[in-house]
Formats: sequence, C-alpha cells, structure tokens
Amino acid sequence: MFEDKDHPSTDLGKLGEFGLIRHLTQHLELRQPTTLEGIGDDAALLAIGDTEVAVTTDMLVEGVHFDLGYAPLKHLGYKAMIVNLSDVYAMNMQATQATVSLAVSNRFPLEALEELYAGIALAGKIYGVDVVGGDTTSSNKGLIISVTAIGQAPKGTAVRRSGAKPNDLLVVSGDIGGAYLGLQVLRREQEVFKVNPRHQPDLEPYSYLVERQLKPEARKDIVELLGKLEVRPTAMIDISDGLSSEILHLCESGQLGCRLFEDKIPLDPSAQAVCEEFNLDSTTVALSGGEDYELLFTIRQEDFPKIKGNPSLTVIGHMAEKEAGAQLVTRAGEQIDLTARGWNAFGSAGE
Amino acid sequence: MFEDKDHPSTDLGKLGEFGLIRHLTQHLELRQPTTLEGIGDDAALLAIGDTEVAVTTDMLVEGVHFDLGYAPLKHLGYKAMIVNLSDVYAMNMQATQATVSLAVSNRFPLEALEELYAGIALAGKIYGVDVVGGDTTSSNKGLIISVTAIGQAPKGTAVRRSGAKPNDLLVVSGDIGGAYLGLQVLRREQEVFKVNPRHQPDLEPYSYLVERQLKPEARKDIVELLGKLEVRPTAMIDISDGLSSEILHLCESGQLGCRLFEDKIPLDPSAQAVCEEFNLDSTTVALSGGEDYELLFTIRQEDFPKIKGNPSLTVIGHMAEKEAGAQLVTRAGEQIDLTARGWNAFGSAGE
Repeated sequence: MFEDKDHPSTDLGKLGEFGLIRHLTQHLELRQPTTLEGIGDDAALLAIGDTEVAVTTDMLVEGVHFDLGYAPLKHLGYKAMIVNLSDVYAMNMQATQATVSLAVSNRFPLEALEELYAGIALAGKIYGVDVVGGDTTSSNKGLIISVTAIGQAPKGTAVRRSGAKPNDLLVVSGDIGGAYLGLQVLRREQEVFKVNPRHQPDLEPYSYLVERQLKPEARKDIVELLGKLEVRPTAMIDISDGLSSEILHLCESGQLGCRLFEDKIPLDPSAQAVCEEFNLDSTTVALSGGEDYELLFTIRQEDFPKIKGNPSLTVIGHMAEKEAGAQLVTRAGEQIDLTARGWNAFGSAGE
Repeated sequence: MFEDKDHPSTDLGKLGEFGLIRHLTQHLELRQPTTLEGIGDDAALLAIGDTEVAVTTDMLVEGVHFDLGYAPLKHLGYKAMIVNLSDVYAMNMQATQATVSLAVSNRFPLEALEELYAGIALAGKIYGVDVVGGDTTSSNKGLIISVTAIGQAPKGTAVRRSGAKPNDLLVVSGDIGGAYLGLQVLRREQEVFKVNPRHQPDLEPYSYLVERQLKPEARKDIVELLGKLEVRPTAMIDISDGLSSEILHLCESGQLGCRLFEDKIPLDPSAQAVCEEFNLDSTTVALSGGEDYELLFTIRQEDFPKIKGNPSLTVIGHMAEKEAGAQLVTRAGEQIDLTARGWNAFGSAGE
C-alpha cells in the first residue's frame, strides 16, 4: 500500500496555484450525503438539515503572503480572518464561526502573539464571527496562520461561481486596485528605510490605499444589501487575485464568455493618482492587482433597477455566450482578450 | 485602534502549549446562537438545526511534528487526517468532511505532493470523510499541513471532556505507548544510518510499534461499537499527548479526581519487549508517550456489563471526588500523584 517508487521530479512552479490544487484534488471522491460541493468554489458547501453550511480555508505564510517589515501583527491577524470571511460572503452567506491555527518560531515573544490575536478577535467582533477553535504550535522558521471559516444560511441561499447566464450583468462592489497600489507604496517606503533608517515616511496621502493592503475589509454589508434589495446574484466570487482572473473563473464555471468595459471599472481617485506617480496603467492594476476582497457577481437584467444608483455597486459589463470569448472593451472601443495573466499580456497588448 | 506600544518580551516556552492557547484565547467572546462550545474540548461544537456539528483543527509542522527522514509522505498525509479525525471521534461523533491546507517549499517536486495527497485521500476513503476544501501555497522552508475536520451527529450525541461523575469507570481503547516506542526505534535506526548509510534496518520485529507511529489509526470503530452497545460515555477525550495528561484533562474539566491502576494499563506485548530493550519503564511510556490516538472515556458503573470482556476496551480506573486528587495506584499498592509531566516527575518517584 505504501510501496517505494522511482522518483520522477516535476517542478511545482509549472502548474501554478490553481493548476496544482486541481491536479492534487482531481481524484478525491465525495461520498457523504451532506456534501453539496467540494473543492472548486470560494467555499465548500454542506447541507445540514435545512441549513447550508459553507467551509473555506486559507493559509498565510510569512515571506510569501506578508512581510512583518511593514505588516503590523494586529493588522495581520485581522487580515487572516478577512480573507476567509470574504470567501464565505462570496457564497452569499453570513460567516458565523472560524478556527485559527498558528505556527510560530520562538523568535516571537508572547506579546507578539497577543497582538496577532487582538486582530483576530477584533475581526471576530466586528463581523460577528465566533473563533471556536485553534491550534498553536512552534515552527522552525517564521509565522504561518491557517484560518478556516464557516458560514450558514437557509437552504437555497448559496450562490456558486457557476449559475450565470448570457446577458446577466457583471457587477462589482466598491473599488478595485487599491490593495495592490498600497503594497507598492509600502515597498517603496521599505526600500527608502533600508537606505536611510532615520527616514520618517509620510503615508498620509496614501492612507486609503495602505489600509486596503494592510487592513482590508470583507463585504458582509454587500450580502446584507443584496438581501434587502431582494437581488439574488446568479453567480458570485470574491476578488482576491485580481479582477480579470476572477471574471475568467466566472466564465469558466458557467461555460460563458463576457464583455468587460474598461471605462466602467471603479477606481478610487487616490488610486488614479498613485498610478500616475508610479507610472502604472490603472486598468492593468485593476485587472491584475488582487487582494481587494470586493465581491464580483452577476445579476439578471430585470434586477438592474434594484441596484441602479447604489454607490457601492458598479455594473462593469455582462456575460455572453462562450463562443464570444472573454473580452475587454477598451475606452477606444477595441476588443481585447481578457487573460488571467493580465499584467503581462494586457500590458503589452493594450498600451 | 492599532497603536504602537512599548514592547515587553515574554518567552513563549514559559506557558507551554495549553497555557499559551488558554492565554491567547481567554478574551474571545462567543456571540453566535449556533455556537455550543468554543475552544477547550477536542472539538468545537455547533448546533445547526437538529444536528450537532464538531469542528477541530490541527497543524503538523516539519521538524516539529514529523521528520521526513523517516516519515514517508503518504503516511504523513494519512496521519495528518487521522490526528484530526481522532478529535471528532473523541466527541462521540462521526467525521464527515475535512479541509486540508499545505504550505510547501519548492524543494518538493509535484510527485512528493501527489504522495502526500494519496495518503490524505486514502484516509478519506477508509474513514468515509470527504475532503471538501484546501489551500496550497508555497513556504520559505519546509512543509506545513493544516487540517480541519468536521463531524456530525444528531442533537444530544456529543460527549464532552466534562460530564464524568465520581465513581464513573475510566476506560481506554486499544493499547497505549506503542507510538512513542515506534518513534524511539525509528530514531535509533536514523542514528545508525547516519554513521553507516549502507546499514539495512530490520524493522520487522518492531513493525507494530513503527506503524503506530507512522500510520496511526483513529477509533471510528469505537464510536460505532459504543453506539451498538448502547453505552453513552459521560466524558471522552482522545489520547494524543499521553495517558496521564489526558486523564488530568478529564479530571480538570469535570472538577474531579481519579484513581488509575498501573496494572490495568493495556500494553502490547511488543511494547513490553521494546521497553526492556531500551531500558524504559513501560508505565512511564504509557503515561507520557503520546500519539496513540486511542479514546479515553468514562462510563457509569451500571454500563460496565455492556463492555465487560470486550477485547478493545479496558477499564483502567475510576473517577473520584476532586479532594481525593488524581492518583496512580502502583502494582505495589502505593498511591502516587498523577502529573501531566509524568515522564520526569513519575520517573523519579516511581522507580
């Protein structure tokens, strides 16, 4: 059963994160009658009695997902919760419980973990989520935070990534690209600090963007708003990896194409300003930046009057038949293939 | 809200794992109506409609919990599932779903992760647990596996650590101490290998113990057996940290004392033999070894006839009033205080 094998060797980088997860989990079978959905959406879905239960897990690794050189521990605890809660909201459900596991090297004193936990507890309090379990262990190097979040809703509430139809409107909450730009600002300050440790950074002009990076919020309020407006999205996903990647997930899950209008993508004015300062194309940033934790969803056209004029929601395009492809319509009216690696592909095609 | 602070510094080692978790989580408030129990038992408990849902999470860290020098990756994936499933069974519930998060450095080729996932999938298949979610990310160093397991049972099924009464019988499944001894055998072979890489280890005489360490099983069958026998334990815990530590958890949770009889502790014959070979006291090994993943529980005396003579279950003592303390009754009839650090404290007192 556990026989030795010859050892072929394939580099992990070749598959990419999504490809790797798909490859590793492709043979997993689902046997439990209470399992509605396994791997492949923002969260897994269970049916327990008349309740749908969402389960999602995300791990943050020091040096990969965060740098303690600029991320305060309290913010980090807060963010570790947010990235998971966002996945529950992306199912159109309310998050209710979470577990938190930490691996920490002994270079961290107790007070550091207290800060981290203060952020975790604060997120729990603000979002009404109970931290019900956890494991704390030592690591040989660095800090790893693994959170699992649980959400609940009455049967029939959950919205999956699939489910959109051609001509459904593509809607995004809030604004996009800020978290990525906040990271660029922080990295620049860190470089300046390395050269001149007495340098006092003035982050005031960048406070919105830096906060989007260090202390993001999850859109619990949008799920509540959609409930009040009596709008049930046909498909939904959260924006953790950049708008183009998430739109393509919706297209792939629904076997659809789409049209995204460049001039509709909502950007904060400060994001526009920093794009100019850093000489970045704002559309490229919005399409490829990531970590905004906004919600991206589709609604039927007849629901448009219900959301029209709401400052938190922007229609940025619509779904289409698969054959039409996933297209970005530029300000100049050109159509360009939307690609997940928008940063490179679009950067060269669109400029 | 996120103000700077002076930085006092307290070494993490001072608190110990349980003390650390207790300290960090002491201020967490539970607000969700569906949360029955938060941190402090083998698993958290939710009430979702007429179903009790258990949620538990455990993280395994390379160099802390395992050494790839002797732990094959497939076994490791299997064990990462088992340690979590065991926590669900310790609630008297059946495990139904799990999520698995991995952080891996790029020194691992794809084939290594396939092996790991083969072990995860095998455990899922054998125990009837669906792997419904997961995250795979890179790490700067080593391998970290974080599993969250979910269990379900009808309302009123869950058995907590508290709930035992004085004179309830203390029962353990299977045999104890094997996993620790298996680890000693593996470490000895590893040392020999370092000196002489051409050395071919003969692990055959130790196969039971080595398997207890590398590929433990969780006692799903005991939960089923107790159901068939119509025995509802009054309190239950799994043996991950050594018998004495777990007994003391039951005593503390129930505000009780206990009497544990040394001559009743079940040991496999091969464990006895290896204790002699390694010059270890078998009782000390059983009390302090850990990682056996057996179940330890209490039953009312009137239930004794139902379990009497069952080869999987051994009565090893009984609970007592708190004032009586937690006592080990030696083969010689002496009473000795049971301590969580049985290895040192008992080692010097009992020999």
